[in-house]
Amino acid sequence: MDLKEAIREVEGFPKEGINFKDITPLLKDGKAFRNAIDAIVNNIKNKDIDIVVGPEARGFLLGAPVAYAIGAGFVPVRKPGKLPWETESYDYDLEYGEDSLEIHKDAIHPGTKVAIVDDLLATGGTTKAVIELIEKLGGEVVAVEYLIELEFLNARELLKGYAVDSVIKYND
Amino acid sequence: MDLKEAIREVEGFPKEGINFKDITPLLKDGKAFRNAIDAIVNNIKNKDIDIVVGPEARGFLLGAPVAYAIGAGFVPVRKPGKLPWETESYDYDLEYGEDSLEIHKDAIHPGTKVAIVDDLLATGGTTKAVIELIEKLGGEVVAVEYLIELEFLNARELLKGYAVDSVIKYND
Repeated sequence: MDLKEAIREVEGFPKEGINFKDITPLLKDGKAFRNAIDAIVNNIKNKDIDIVVGPEARGFLLGAPVAYAIGAGFVPVRKPGKLPWETESYDYDLEYGEDSLEIHKDAIHPGTKVAIVDDLLATGGTTKAVIELIEKLGGEVVAVEYLIELEFLNARELLKGYAVDSVIKYND
Repeated sequence: MDLKEAIREVEGFPKEGINFKDITPLLKDGKAFRNAIDAIVNNIKNKDIDIVVGPEARGFLLGAPVAYAIGAGFVPVRKPGKLPWETESYDYDLEYGEDSLEIHKDAIHPGTKVAIVDDLLATGGTTKAVIELIEKLGGEVVAVEYLIELEFLNARELLKGYAVDSVIKYND
């Protein structure tokens, strides 16, 4: 089963010049969805993961089933104001302007082994922010997993030192 | 295992007068998370579900693992502007103002058997909007599943005629 065939490319979304990778055709195909989750599970199954962290909102779609499959807990990373308890937050630069992400302070403890799961690795900026949050709380990022990787953006440079895997790769 | 013990009540979030049910302690506990998903799976396992639909964003956290567990596809319902392809949308009234939800038009076909999965049943307004979207596309809503139900808000009146289940119930 070639999972790439279940990805729809949408030119010009959310803005001109971007060729958006729409994962919804894969998600709605029960067999493709299960294969995709199992491929991620296979990459991390020997790593003794305590917690899967997924950033809002598409990271929830992959990260929550991965956590369920391996019997780990799931911790959401969210936009400001969405988490109800005490949070750690991290501000980071975007192409235009700034963004901020939050995690509950009681979500990760020193020594917690964490896998980050998200839908897409582009420049790696969001992942870097998520790593900062986890490490601020003492967690150990032992795996960084994506459904899709845009290899030509060279995000692995930014994520050097971390174990990065992806299921579907685009070279251009 | 009493799953209610893994829910944190946060007074005054997101605004005064609301006693917010924070599911993040349950999610981060691998055993509680798996038990919660399995309880939902148990409610729908004989219903021959094709597609699980979950509304953004907490519906993703429960709905995606349920879809994975039963081998169904997952279809997200999102806020306007988030879905990249052609959408069906539905406007509905909130306590103050209006809100709108969208679904991809190609996500559901006539006769598709759908389970809606969300974190919390309060007044049922969001669920009613999700049902409208699914039925507009010809889908058949055969189950409506929640992790938590606020029984004192009587949402089952609004959802009469649908098969509604919840795992954790609050009476006041």
